[in-house]
Amino acid sequence: MTATLSTDTVVQIGLIVRDVEATAQAYAELLGVAVPQWVLTGPEVEAHTRCRGAPTEARAKLAFFRLGNLQLELIEPVGGPSTWREFLEVHGEGVHHIAFEVEDMQDQVAALAAKGMPLVQRGDYTGGCYAYIDSGEQLKVILELLAND
Amino acid sequence: MTATLSTDTVVQIGLIVRDVEATAQAYAELLGVAVPQWVLTGPEVEAHTRCRGAPTEARAKLAFFRLGNLQLELIEPVGGPSTWREFLEVHGEGVHHIAFEVEDMQDQVAALAAKGMPLVQRGDYTGGCYAYIDSGEQLKVILELLAND
Repeated sequence: MTATLSTDTVVQIGLIVRDVEATAQAYAELLGVAVPQWVLTGPEVEAHTRCRGAPTEARAKLAFFRLGNLQLELIEPVGGPSTWREFLEVHGEGVHHIAFEVEDMQDQVAALAAKGMPLVQRGDYTGGCYAYIDSGEQLKVILELLAND
Repeated sequence: MTATLSTDTVVQIGLIVRDVEATAQAYAELLGVAVPQWVLTGPEVEAHTRCRGAPTEARAKLAFFRLGNLQLELIEPVGGPSTWREFLEVHGEGVHHIAFEVEDMQDQVAALAAKGMPLVQRGDYTGGCYAYIDSGEQLKVILELLAND
């Protein structure tokens, strides 16, 4: 059987939280590391953020932890509309996505859409871009694709 | 700062699903692998399953995928009460836990309880035992500790 996804290595687990500072503090204590400073995602004019095809002023406060075999990302939604805020409203706090790093972003997005898992949100960050896939109905978690330059 | 957890490697991501066969089929297509056969957890008399300290006849249908750097576990709750069923009722389908393999199970459970994250469910399986930690309030996801013989 041919895989739809070109990789099977989970590079990141992303959690939606209401208070990034409080949750970062809890993980820092669990892991015995310093509390990371959160960063704010860029504005739409920089990040070209699109949610369901439309530009959005949604942003998020992010904090990252380097675990042994992947990265943990804490996401506090700011503004809206976004997949982050939608998740918080529907499910509450919890794991929003698992991320895979891909080289062929456009082909991967197209292949997943052909399997009934369309793009829900995309954006750019310094050094790359991300795409969230509306895979919850089939996979019970959102997939994030990351393409780094 | 001293870590509460003795490891930072995520060995498993566990998802609660309503239909393990349908979700296993979706992941098999995504990853280009054969659909794994689900297995039923042992009865209480074998698995010594305890939920909030009391024996429970809760069981689950499990299916596993080996990804590049960790294991994906699909969990369909059967019977109750269990942390699996509670999660489904509160959050719906989605990521229930991230798992870490530990050698010092009793010490780890005690250390987490001392930090306000008590044991919520435990059980045995062939070759080891598991403990779910009620860490949702602080960490926004349940921790599972796995100790293999």
